[in-house]
Amino acid sequence: MTGDLRRAVGIDLGGTYIKAALVDGSGNIEHQERCPTGVEGGVDGVATRVAGLVHALASARGIDLTDVAGVGIGVPGVTTSEGTVVLAPNLNWRQVPFKRVLAERLGTRVELDNDANVAALGEARIGAGGGCDSLVLLTLGTGIGGGIILGGRALHGSSFAAGEVGHICVLPDGPRCACGLRGCLEALASGPAMVRLVQDRLSAGTPSVLVDGDGLTPEAICSAAASGDGLGQAAVDHVAEYLGIAIANIIALLSPEVIALGGGISAAGDVLLKPILSAAESRSLEGMFEHTRILAATLGNNAGSIGAALLVL
Amino acid sequence: MTGDLRRAVGIDLGGTYIKAALVDGSGNIEHQERCPTGVEGGVDGVATRVAGLVHALASARGIDLTDVAGVGIGVPGVTTSEGTVVLAPNLNWRQVPFKRVLAERLGTRVELDNDANVAALGEARIGAGGGCDSLVLLTLGTGIGGGIILGGRALHGSSFAAGEVGHICVLPDGPRCACGLRGCLEALASGPAMVRLVQDRLSAGTPSVLVDGDGLTPEAICSAAASGDGLGQAAVDHVAEYLGIAIANIIALLSPEVIALGGGISAAGDVLLKPILSAAESRSLEGMFEHTRILAATLGNNAGSIGAALLVL
Repeated sequence: MTGDLRRAVGIDLGGTYIKAALVDGSGNIEHQERCPTGVEGGVDGVATRVAGLVHALASARGIDLTDVAGVGIGVPGVTTSEGTVVLAPNLNWRQVPFKRVLAERLGTRVELDNDANVAALGEARIGAGGGCDSLVLLTLGTGIGGGIILGGRALHGSSFAAGEVGHICVLPDGPRCACGLRGCLEALASGPAMVRLVQDRLSAGTPSVLVDGDGLTPEAICSAAASGDGLGQAAVDHVAEYLGIAIANIIALLSPEVIALGGGISAAGDVLLKPILSAAESRSLEGMFEHTRILAATLGNNAGSIGAALLVL
Repeated sequence: MTGDLRRAVGIDLGGTYIKAALVDGSGNIEHQERCPTGVEGGVDGVATRVAGLVHALASARGIDLTDVAGVGIGVPGVTTSEGTVVLAPNLNWRQVPFKRVLAERLGTRVELDNDANVAALGEARIGAGGGCDSLVLLTLGTGIGGGIILGGRALHGSSFAAGEVGHICVLPDGPRCACGLRGCLEALASGPAMVRLVQDRLSAGTPSVLVDGDGLTPEAICSAAASGDGLGQAAVDHVAEYLGIAIANIIALLSPEVIALGGGISAAGDVLLKPILSAAESRSLEGMFEHTRILAATLGNNAGSIGAALLVL
């Protein structure tokens, strides 16, 4: 098999697993591999594992590393334009020049960015955005993350931490967030916030098919809402209202072509998406809302590795 | 006097006056003229007056129009990348291809943009931003307007109306805004909102040096606060709290180098700026706030004409 410079390796470096994919110029995954991150092995250990995955991918496809455009990598933390990881709590990294470390190890071109930016890039070019110029990705899960693509590129900002969608304030006197601020979107509309709301109402005696315990997940709550449970619907509406406010604020400021909703909770589909759309529309300026498409993200767990490959494609 | 292509004419087209300035490559105003807009004369009448100002500027400086880089113009409405004014309520214009109209009339290069974007460009390159790459301008007055500069250029967004800073929601159940939405920044922190708060408290018997009537302006309220009046300070703190939330949200999303505060109310100086800074800091994510400078705008009423000239410089 011959090489093709319209092909790259994308690495999704997480706190638990490293995922690597060989991606073609259209964003299709040709082959993928993964292994545990092994955070305890330090920067050197992680670099060795990443390099191992890259070589495994190449040999599985019978190609040489000189035959790919390079290696892109998304990391869970704040990064600089030079490819240094300033802070990545899940990796216990501070000021790690990982782009340089990896480029030396592999002898190939390496580009590095924050994982949320990389996922947003994947959704803009290949996923929900279908090649659009401007997209904001909100990932709804245990936390609420995000990435902003403008002019086809990730917005980093002066702090290199732009796109903190989960920490815009949507209720000034709202609950305390894990970040220490009050009324952040994440404190009101994340998975744990949704579960907490249902727990509180169950404790207060609200009737529901839902039962407190391990089975009480955002997915279970969305299912209950879909089957007509009043408490499930109330929790969905609560989350949708604050997501709607955040989305309307993003539209007022940035007016992006697409806002994509990803992460575990977004898999609930229309039961969650429709109330979010409705809340966002009712909170948006006339003449602006209709210029932004609000869509479910489409790349799922592959957004990270596909987006990372796009850093070098 | 010889011509210089590092010089341009900037036009600030308002509902009442048209202001025109001959601006050099460093953003200095060499000469300026103004005349009434004469909205009742329609597009043709306004074009004639703009052309008249441009020729008056040139002849006052003894130069020819071929000796300037072109004419930039800021208009109070939604504009397109082709220089069409989609909607400008203060001019009674809809779908006016004013860039083309003016270019044909003048026989020179013309560029056109929304007035808030143009002012933000002026503040970024010449004013408070001092040549920065990314700046968000908030103009505080009867309304709250704004413009966003990223990568040195105005952000227009898919609706061409991006930068509606005054209509981000900062209090979900807050007062109704003139735009019809609830809890917009403008409904809580504009000049009229500040005056209304003081009027309400005066009616309720709150003691103050302030007296309801024509003299009750945002400027008077800020002066009262500066001289130790409790009600004046409460009004300033109220406005500062919501401006702080909006600014913190802008920082979380965009992390711009500079946020500049302009418009009439910003002239109050430290009595208003300090509480705004303090509120914005307390609402901002650790590690982000210190990467954005929050400053008073410096170009004042000339931001529009200087920024407009920069469209062609």
